[in-house]
Amino acid sequence: MTEPSAVPDDNSLDGLRQRLSRFAAARDWEPFHTPKNLAAALSVEAGELLEIFQWLTPDQSAAVMTDPDTAHRVRDEVADVLAYLLQFCTVTGVDPLAALAAKIDRNELRFPAPGRPDGPRRSD
Amino acid sequence: MTEPSAVPDDNSLDGLRQRLSRFAAARDWEPFHTPKNLAAALSVEAGELLEIFQWLTPDQSAAVMTDPDTAHRVRDEVADVLAYLLQFCTVTGVDPLAALAAKIDRNELRFPAPGRPDGPRRSD
Amino acid sequence: MTEPSAVPDDNSLDGLRQRLSRFAAARDWEPFHTPKNLAAALSVEAGELLEIFQWLTPDQSAAVMTDPDTAHRVRDEVADVLAYLLQFCTVTGVDPLAALAAKIDRNELRFPAPGRPDGPRRSD
Amino acid sequence: MTEPSAVPDDNSLDGLRQRLSRFAAARDWEPFHTPKNLAAALSVEAGELLEIFQWLTPDQSAAVMTDPDTAHRVRDEVADVLAYLLQFCTVTGVDPLAALAAKIDRNELRFPAPGRPDGPRRSD
Repeated sequence: MTEPSAVPDDNSLDGLRQRLSRFAAARDWEPFHTPKNLAAALSVEAGELLEIFQWLTPDQSAAVMTDPDTAHRVRDEVADVLAYLLQFCTVTGVDPLAALAAKIDRNELRFPAPGRPDGPRRSD
Repeated sequence: MTEPSAVPDDNSLDGLRQRLSRFAAARDWEPFHTPKNLAAALSVEAGELLEIFQWLTPDQSAAVMTDPDTAHRVRDEVADVLAYLLQFCTVTGVDPLAALAAKIDRNELRFPAPGRPDGPRRSD
Repeated sequence: MTEPSAVPDDNSLDGLRQRLSRFAAARDWEPFHTPKNLAAALSVEAGELLEIFQWLTPDQSAAVMTDPDTAHRVRDEVADVLAYLLQFCTVTGVDPLAALAAKIDRNELRFPAPGRPDGPRRSD
Repeated sequence: MTEPSAVPDDNSLDGLRQRLSRFAAARDWEPFHTPKNLAAALSVEAGELLEIFQWLTPDQSAAVMTDPDTAHRVRDEVADVLAYLLQFCTVTGVDPLAALAAKIDRNELRFPAPGRPDGPRRSD
């Protein structure tokens, strides 16, 4: 019998994605993890992160990590957003790093950097 | 003079985070990138991902990637969410992988897997 | 045969709620209008309203209605949020005005106004 | 001296909007109530409403008001969404009922009801 914990933890993005999958499977949470539900949960958690900032001025917002309790709360909400994003990627088969790399490539063409008519990705 | 594009792209999570930082710096977008604004943008993009699913049944939701146009839209919104999450992490100094690993560790204690009173992280 | 439009429009909150119900019924949209779907749609529209403001400074935010195109967009998103909120109330049977009145009553006790230890609702 | 509570409460939409304004003014909360902050708070509260539904099946979602505690939570979140929407309307000068009436008028042209090529608003 293979114990999940027998495998040393791999805290790369894909290793964490797999840890989350094992975590959900061990608790029989998979039936709840439709793409729709995970997209809703992601949006809810993004709202919880925003809640920390909703009444702050830009300056207060920039200093948010100087208070240890708030810093902990920020890290916790970042973790929740990333967790649901990765679980969404698992059930839809999306590769988040490939999706982002493709998006940056497109944006480099769409928004050329000033002074570089062709955009930085095309200069050579 | 160092060209950003002279460095071969590194499409790891941290490589993409750095590409996004260079992208924003080259366009003078940094003043807009307060933690508050990036948290708002993250929430907006999570809403755009949810919009794809809002009227779907669970079964339709599970089949969402079978339509190429919808699949493209899903990957695009995943990229946007991840982009703003990484940019938020840049300006706050949060390590997203460490934050998620710590959260999974806490959740393994908080929600022990059935049949393992101590939880899978403590069995050995 | 009764025409919905034979009834003069009543643009009170409840009149608009009823117009929205007739609108959805005439298009057979009711099966999509589960409380869950309407809560998701409400959240998506609130995100679209927030999108208008995401990169604005507080001062720019305060001046948002001076530009006619942006003002139109703001009114349009307010309408969408209110539309989904009212449709949510229709399918759940929630009376939004009674819910808000009760909430304000509770908040007047929870956050007494400065200089009025008992709160303004209790003074008589 | 005029007590706010000396005026009988008017729990119409506009009466509640005014109660919220007096409530914020009495607590010196007005500086926080920029359009941007209120749009963020609205989005956060819409997320809290969605949170109630995120793991529910469509059938469970339809039965959400049968549990008294959940029903209370739903009414409370509806109140929060409406409160921030009204406060947003106060600071931007948007008339929410007029905005929604105009939107329904537009949608009746945009989505004609089946069997009524001109749409129900134009039949006479």
